[in-house]
Amino acid sequence: MKIYRIDMTEGKVAAEEVAEKYAALGGRGLTSQIIADEVDPNCHALGGGNKLVIAPGLLSGTSAPSSGRLSVGTKSPLTGTIKESNAGGTASQKLAKLGIKAIIIEGQPKDGKFYTIKITNDGVQLLDAAKLIGKRNYDVGDLARGDFGEKVCVMSIGPAGEYKVSAASIAVTDGEGRPVRHCGRGGTGAVMGSKGVKAVIIDDAGAPGVEVKDKDKFKEAARDFSKMLLDHPVCGQGLPTYGTAVLVNILNEAGGLPTKNFRSGRFDGADKIGGEAMYDIINERKGNPTHGCHPGCVMRCSQVYNDKEGNYLTAGFEYETIWAFGAHCTIDDLDAIATLDRLCDDIGVDTIEMGVTVGVAMEAGIIPFGDAEGAIDLLQQVGEGTPLGRILGNGASFTGKAYGITRVPTVKDQSMPAYDPRAVKGVGVTYATTTQGADHTAGYSVTANILKVGGNVDPLNKEGQVDLSRNLQIATAAVDSTGLCLFVAFAVLDEPKALPRVVDMLNAQYGLSLTLDDVTALGQSILKVERDFNAKAGFTKSHDRLPEFFKEVLEPHGTTWDFTDEELDNLYNF
Amino acid sequence: MKIYRIDMTEGKVAAEEVAEKYAALGGRGLTSQIIADEVDPNCHALGGGNKLVIAPGLLSGTSAPSSGRLSVGTKSPLTGTIKESNAGGTASQKLAKLGIKAIIIEGQPKDGKFYTIKITNDGVQLLDAAKLIGKRNYDVGDLARGDFGEKVCVMSIGPAGEYKVSAASIAVTDGEGRPVRHCGRGGTGAVMGSKGVKAVIIDDAGAPGVEVKDKDKFKEAARDFSKMLLDHPVCGQGLPTYGTAVLVNILNEAGGLPTKNFRSGRFDGADKIGGEAMYDIINERKGNPTHGCHPGCVMRCSQVYNDKEGNYLTAGFEYETIWAFGAHCTIDDLDAIATLDRLCDDIGVDTIEMGVTVGVAMEAGIIPFGDAEGAIDLLQQVGEGTPLGRILGNGASFTGKAYGITRVPTVKDQSMPAYDPRAVKGVGVTYATTTQGADHTAGYSVTANILKVGGNVDPLNKEGQVDLSRNLQIATAAVDSTGLCLFVAFAVLDEPKALPRVVDMLNAQYGLSLTLDDVTALGQSILKVERDFNAKAGFTKSHDRLPEFFKEVLEPHGTTWDFTDEELDNLYNF
Repeated sequence: MKIYRIDMTEGKVAAEEVAEKYAALGGRGLTSQIIADEVDPNCHALGGGNKLVIAPGLLSGTSAPSSGRLSVGTKSPLTGTIKESNAGGTASQKLAKLGIKAIIIEGQPKDGKFYTIKITNDGVQLLDAAKLIGKRNYDVGDLARGDFGEKVCVMSIGPAGEYKVSAASIAVTDGEGRPVRHCGRGGTGAVMGSKGVKAVIIDDAGAPGVEVKDKDKFKEAARDFSKMLLDHPVCGQGLPTYGTAVLVNILNEAGGLPTKNFRSGRFDGADKIGGEAMYDIINERKGNPTHGCHPGCVMRCSQVYNDKEGNYLTAGFEYETIWAFGAHCTIDDLDAIATLDRLCDDIGVDTIEMGVTVGVAMEAGIIPFGDAEGAIDLLQQVGEGTPLGRILGNGASFTGKAYGITRVPTVKDQSMPAYDPRAVKGVGVTYATTTQGADHTAGYSVTANILKVGGNVDPLNKEGQVDLSRNLQIATAAVDSTGLCLFVAFAVLDEPKALPRVVDMLNAQYGLSLTLDDVTALGQSILKVERDFNAKAGFTKSHDRLPEFFKEVLEPHGTTWDFTDEELDNLYNF
Repeated sequence: MKIYRIDMTEGKVAAEEVAEKYAALGGRGLTSQIIADEVDPNCHALGGGNKLVIAPGLLSGTSAPSSGRLSVGTKSPLTGTIKESNAGGTASQKLAKLGIKAIIIEGQPKDGKFYTIKITNDGVQLLDAAKLIGKRNYDVGDLARGDFGEKVCVMSIGPAGEYKVSAASIAVTDGEGRPVRHCGRGGTGAVMGSKGVKAVIIDDAGAPGVEVKDKDKFKEAARDFSKMLLDHPVCGQGLPTYGTAVLVNILNEAGGLPTKNFRSGRFDGADKIGGEAMYDIINERKGNPTHGCHPGCVMRCSQVYNDKEGNYLTAGFEYETIWAFGAHCTIDDLDAIATLDRLCDDIGVDTIEMGVTVGVAMEAGIIPFGDAEGAIDLLQQVGEGTPLGRILGNGASFTGKAYGITRVPTVKDQSMPAYDPRAVKGVGVTYATTTQGADHTAGYSVTANILKVGGNVDPLNKEGQVDLSRNLQIATAAVDSTGLCLFVAFAVLDEPKALPRVVDMLNAQYGLSLTLDDVTALGQSILKVERDFNAKAGFTKSHDRLPEFFKEVLEPHGTTWDFTDEELDNLYNF
C-alpha cells in the first residue's frame, strides 16, 4: 500500500510509504487523521494550506458486500469544520485494487489553471484539463472516457466546483459511468476546484488487487455477513425494492417530514413523491428500481429513473433529495424533482444543500413555494454562475444572510437533512453535536426513533436521545472507516452476529486480532480527532446548537426542540 | 434620566427608571452592558432576541467640547460579536438634553411593517412609516423634516437597512440635517431594519437640558480642556484644516496606505486624493473645508464637498472612505470617490466595508481595478437590492466567499480600515484583538506608530505594539463612554493635564469623585464585558488572527505580519 502526495503548487507527485500510525486506518479514520496532522485548523479552506484527502475504506476492493464507499476529507469551506464526505461509485474499489491507501492533494497551481489527475497502475500523472473547463459532470465523464477508456472511474467537479461555491460536490461515477454518486456535503468540490483539479481519472487495469491474508476466513465471514444483510427486512427488502425514497411516506406518517421550510411535519403531496410512487413510475417507464451504487452491493438502494419518454433522466435519486426539493419546497412533482436531481449532479452541487437553499430562497420570496419551474431556473443559475447563482451555490445559511432571512435550518452553516429535529429528536441531537455540521448520516437515530431498528426510542421525547446519538456517532465513525455502506447498520443493530463478522473480515484481510471493543475505540478516537480539530478552528459548545426557530411548535405532534445546553453538551462524555 | 424601552412586537413604549448599575455608565459602556445583560449571545442577530441600544455619552448635551458622539450597541449581524458603533451628528446631544439615558429597541413587529419612532419631550410614539419605505437617507430626512420640523435629528436606515444586509448603517443627521454621520460599522442598520424601524426622529424642543451639579467647576474644566484641544497641532490645526484626509499622504509616505487590495503600502495616485488636494478643490468650489459633525466640536474635521458645478455633493468625507474607494480600489479621482461616499450615505452602508468590498469585487474580476464608473454601478446595485447588490451589501468576507476569493482583508468578517497591519503594526494588533472585528478606532495605534503622539513606537517592528494597543483599547473604551470624540485622544496622550480635566467635568456634572484610575478601570471593565459576551457567542483566541495572506511581504518596507499567537493572546492580560 502507498500514499500518493500530489503537490499542485510544484506540479509534483510522490509515492510515499504508509506511516505506521496510518496502517490500521482507512476511509474516514484515515482522512480525518491526515487532515488533523497536516492542515492548520485556522487556514482558509480555499487557500493553499488546506488539503484534500481521498481514501478508500479498509474493506474496499475486497469481496465484502457493500464495501465500496469512498471517503474524502478536508477542512470544509461550508462549515469551517473538519469534513468527511462519503460517496459510492467505483473510485474506492479501484483505488484499493491499485494498492492506494490515500491520495493527498495539496497546494495550488501557480498558473491558476485546471488539471486532470490520472491514476493508473503505472503511477500518477498531472495532465492539462483545458478541454474540460466549464463542462458539467455528464460531459466531463463522456470526454474523459473518450480519452482514457470506458472502464475508468471519473471523479470530477462541475462548474460549481470551478466557482468554488461551498455547496460544490465531487461527482464519482457509478458502474455505468454516470456522475451520480457524490461527495456532496461540505463543499469538497470547492476545495478540489481551489486546488486546480477538474477531474481525477482512476484506471485500475492491471491492478494487483487487494491482498487478503487469510482468504478462507475472509470468504466465510463475507458470505455470512452478506446473508445477514439479505435476511434483514430493511437491507434485503425495503431498500432494494423502493430505495431510500421509501422513507417519504414513513417520515410523513411519523410527522417528521419537514415541510415548507420546517413549518410542519406532514406534506399533503407526500404520496406523490414517495418510494412507492417512484417504483411504479420507474417500472412503467422501463427504468430500473434496483441498482447498486457500486459493484458488489447487496442492498442496491439506487435506481435508474427515466423521463416520460422513457429516456434516462437520473440515477442515485435519494430520499433526502426528494425531500429537499419536494416537501421542503412543497413541490409534489416527482419528474420536476428528478430534473433538479439531474441538474445538481451535472452542475456538481450537494442535493441536500441545494434543496434546502431553494426552500430558503422561497422563504425570501425570490420564487414562490411550490414553484418547480422557478426552482429549475435557480439551479441553472448556479450552473451559470450568475450573482444569484453564486448566492445559492454557497448554500442555505449564505442565502439566508444575503436576503436577511432568519428561518434557515442549518447547523454550523450546513443544511439539515430530511428529518425534523422536533419529531425525530435523536437525529436532532446528531445535527447539533456532530463534528460535521447538520448531518443525518453521522448518527442516524432514525433507526431506533422511527424504524425501530436496534431498539425503540420514542422520537418525540428527549429521553434517551443523547445516548442513542452518541452510540451511533461512535459506531458510524468506525463504519465510515471500513468502506462499508452506512446502511449495513440496520442489520448490525438488529443482528448481534453481524458486527463480529465485520471484525472477522478486517482480521482476515489484515492479519489482525481486533475485538469488538477495538471498533468502539476506533470510533471514539476518530470523533476525538475531529472534535479537537474543530476546537482549534474556533468551534465551541455554543456552535452545537439548533437555530432558534426550532422553539416553535411542530404539528402534528405539537413538539418543540426542548434540549438544554447541558444535555447536548453531555454527548461528548467519553 | 430615564431609559425608554420600545417593544416592537407589542408596539409598546415604557419609560423606565435607570437601574443603579447603569447610573455611572454612558455611551459604549452603557450599550455594551445592556446588550450583555439582556441579549443571548447566541441569538440570531436579525431575530427577535437581539436588541438595539442607543445611548448618548456621559458628557453629551453639555458644553464639554466635542462631546456629542452617540453609541449604538447590538449583536452585530456582520461579525457575530457584540458591537458598539459610534457616530457624530446631533442625536446624542438631543437625547441627553431630553434626559434620555438610553433607548432600547427590542422584538419585531408581528405585521412585518416599518415604523417611525418619534421622540419628543412629551415621550415616545410609534408611527406608521409607509411613506418612507424604499427611500434613501437624503429623501427620508427631507420627508421627516417636512412632517416633524426643520430642527429634528433624523436617524434612519436606507434601502440597505431595509434589506438587512450586514454592511447597513444607521444615518444620523448633522447640524444641517444631512444624513452624513453614520453608525457605520457592524451592520447596526440591518438590526434596525430587522426591528421594523425605518427612522428615529429626535425633537428636543422644550427639553430640560442636562443637569450639571457643579456648574462653575464644570465650566472651568470644559474651558481648559477646550484650550488644550485647540493648542494641540493635530486637534487644533491639522484636523480643522485638512480633515482626516490629511492622513492619505502621511500614510502613503509611511508606506502603510493599503493599495490594490493590500498589495502595496504606497499608491501612485495618493497626492490626487489627499487632504491637501481636497482642501484646494473644496475652496475652489466654495465648499467648506472646516465643519463640525456636531455643534460644539472644536476640532471640526468634517467638511462640505461640492461637485464641479459648485453644488453640494457630500459631507463627512473621511480618510477611511477616501482610502477604501481610492488606494484600495486604485481609483485616484476624488470626485468619483465623493460620489461613492454620497451613495453610501444615501443607501445607508458603511463606507469602509463597502470600499473594501468593491476592492474584493475587483479582486474577483467583477470589475477591473481602478474602474470608478464600475464602482458607482456596484454601489447602485446595493441600493437596488439586485442579487449582486445583496452580495456586496453583506460586505467583503461575504463577497469573497460568493466568488471563492481568499484575499479578503477582514477580521471577524469586518473589513480592515486604512492602515496596513504590516506597516502600522500597532493597528494590526488592534484589528486582530479588539472585541469589534477589524476596527482602527478601537485602539488607534496610529498615534504612536505614525503621528508620534503619546510616544514613538516604530510601526515596522512588533516590539511594544501589544502594550500600545492594549493601553489604547482600554482608554478608548472609556472615551467612547463619555461622548467625547476619539480625536480628543491626540491631546490627551500628549498633554498630561488633559485627562484630569475630563475627570473633572464628569465629577462636576454628576457629583462624583472619580480618579484617573477609575477611568482605566472603566475601560478594562467594558472590554471584559464585551469579551465575555463574545466568548459566550463562540469566539475564541483563534478568531483573534489576521487572514493568512498577510504573511506576504509588503513593500516599500519589506515587512510581514510576524506576531506569534502567544504575543497576540497576551493582549488580554488584565
